[in-house]
Amino acid sequence: MNSGSAARPYGITLGDSSGVGPEILLKAFSAGQLPRPFRVFGDRAVLSYYNDKLALGVQLETVDVRDPGLLKSSDVTPGQLSRESGAAARQYVVDATKAALAGEISAVVTLPINKEATQMTDPKFTGHTELIGELCGSDDVTIMLVSDQLIVTHVSTHVSLKAAIARAKKERVLKIIQLTGAAVSRLRSNPRIAVAGLNPHAGENGLFGDEEIKEIRPAVEEAKKQGIPVEGPLAPDTLFYLAVQKKKYDAIVCMYHDQGHIPLKLLDFEGGVNVALGLPIIRTSVDHGTAFDIAGKGIASTTSLLRAIELALRLASN
Amino acid sequence: MNSGSAARPYGITLGDSSGVGPEILLKAFSAGQLPRPFRVFGDRAVLSYYNDKLALGVQLETVDVRDPGLLKSSDVTPGQLSRESGAAARQYVVDATKAALAGEISAVVTLPINKEATQMTDPKFTGHTELIGELCGSDDVTIMLVSDQLIVTHVSTHVSLKAAIARAKKERVLKIIQLTGAAVSRLRSNPRIAVAGLNPHAGENGLFGDEEIKEIRPAVEEAKKQGIPVEGPLAPDTLFYLAVQKKKYDAIVCMYHDQGHIPLKLLDFEGGVNVALGLPIIRTSVDHGTAFDIAGKGIASTTSLLRAIELALRLASN
Repeated sequence: MNSGSAARPYGITLGDSSGVGPEILLKAFSAGQLPRPFRVFGDRAVLSYYNDKLALGVQLETVDVRDPGLLKSSDVTPGQLSRESGAAARQYVVDATKAALAGEISAVVTLPINKEATQMTDPKFTGHTELIGELCGSDDVTIMLVSDQLIVTHVSTHVSLKAAIARAKKERVLKIIQLTGAAVSRLRSNPRIAVAGLNPHAGENGLFGDEEIKEIRPAVEEAKKQGIPVEGPLAPDTLFYLAVQKKKYDAIVCMYHDQGHIPLKLLDFEGGVNVALGLPIIRTSVDHGTAFDIAGKGIASTTSLLRAIELALRLASN
Repeated sequence: MNSGSAARPYGITLGDSSGVGPEILLKAFSAGQLPRPFRVFGDRAVLSYYNDKLALGVQLETVDVRDPGLLKSSDVTPGQLSRESGAAARQYVVDATKAALAGEISAVVTLPINKEATQMTDPKFTGHTELIGELCGSDDVTIMLVSDQLIVTHVSTHVSLKAAIARAKKERVLKIIQLTGAAVSRLRSNPRIAVAGLNPHAGENGLFGDEEIKEIRPAVEEAKKQGIPVEGPLAPDTLFYLAVQKKKYDAIVCMYHDQGHIPLKLLDFEGGVNVALGLPIIRTSVDHGTAFDIAGKGIASTTSLLRAIELALRLASN
């Protein structure tokens, strides 16, 4: 309905050409499932390769593609780690981010990169989120995972557990609570947000660690003063049960990557969507990897891509 | 069938008299659900109080009780933190552990203690497992959580996350893999055990922490040499999905308390059973707390107690 003439397209980055990204995009398109207008950031030759291989019959000339001209069809090797593909996948993200910052597209939806492949030419590459954050000049970026049953955000993500503990400071926790509050209120009315403790039983009153007392509780109290509907820190093992089974909370602010990722992926491995918070642009991502083991077979699910697009459009319209 | 004349009883400790333990025991008994023979470690006056309060009509004189004579019926205060009750609950555990060590009972099944209440007279008390470990002179004790869908064990439990990282050393990880292998092989034929990484993505080849490379992988390799059917370290967020949804593993060795407790409690909050490994005695426990908010109302579920007993009897017979 609102795909009218003047609407800005959203962008989709193609991801690593050895992975399942390109075929998922083509499958969703050929099934008529992709909302319009959209723009693909990726090599047309990659689309062409998979369109032929899987006999999808997509009229590629009807697709709006920002083609950096980095890969030829003969470069595409499903399931194989490729230096060229890793570098190209990175470039698609750079191009899409710049287009979003310039206002040419309304949002960026990313298909999976293979970290190892991209590190062949960019050894410091740790992930989409960090790269986009750097391109946007944003320091306080974090990942929000959205599934039907639960939303989780993270005080830290792709760092060691030791570094995650060091990062769980009042200022950072407060910042993530604020970002969570702002994002969740675009997705739910009257959201209820809970903050997980860092330690078992949320530290059991200081018996198993004092980060809850020194850092997390002061951040929660400050956030409450600012009017954010938040509680915590709460015992992590009970909290996920209360949120999911008892529907007591809409979102949980997690202190480290696996605290949120373990329960979310357990509940909804294929359907989760990854949203970057703290950026000046809207960016969502499928919540799965390149899946080299099934790449090029046409069996990868389009569910996560479709949800990532739907969420990007909701965030863009609110 | 094998509740014959010569069978040794198993023991049940009554837990905190202000919590749901006593009523769960009485409910299960009055419903004819408790396998015989068993011996209760606790004050008969507490049983009598709840038997009257909930009008359960249990013939208490038919119950085998090791009564320390610490509490009167008038001391029982459902839902209220009580110094006397906390101290008595601790004594029941001491008595039962000694009876198990002496071979008088085949196993110990524990009902919940209230940590805060017990700390009123024993400030160093951190939990059942630690107390029983101390009484048995066992250093390498750990908790195994058993649900229908998954078994998890832990390299550390009731310590801060910082201390948990420090404890994830090769020797300790190997010990827990060995204990897990021995315990799981009593419960499953051809068990498949996986070891979780400590860091996100199991460290991503050292990018997010090196504990996997320095400590965990060497422990897994050593365990494999010893013939234990184990794999790892694996990315924690994918691993629980693979184990539960894809049925790829029977048990996961976790590096810290919440890594195992978050997914287990999310899947099976009421039915999980807690088993102590590394003890010379068999000890299982309900996987819930004293639930002061519903104590004395007769609504607490007996499910976890019955599963804890069933598991104790299986472990005792194998």
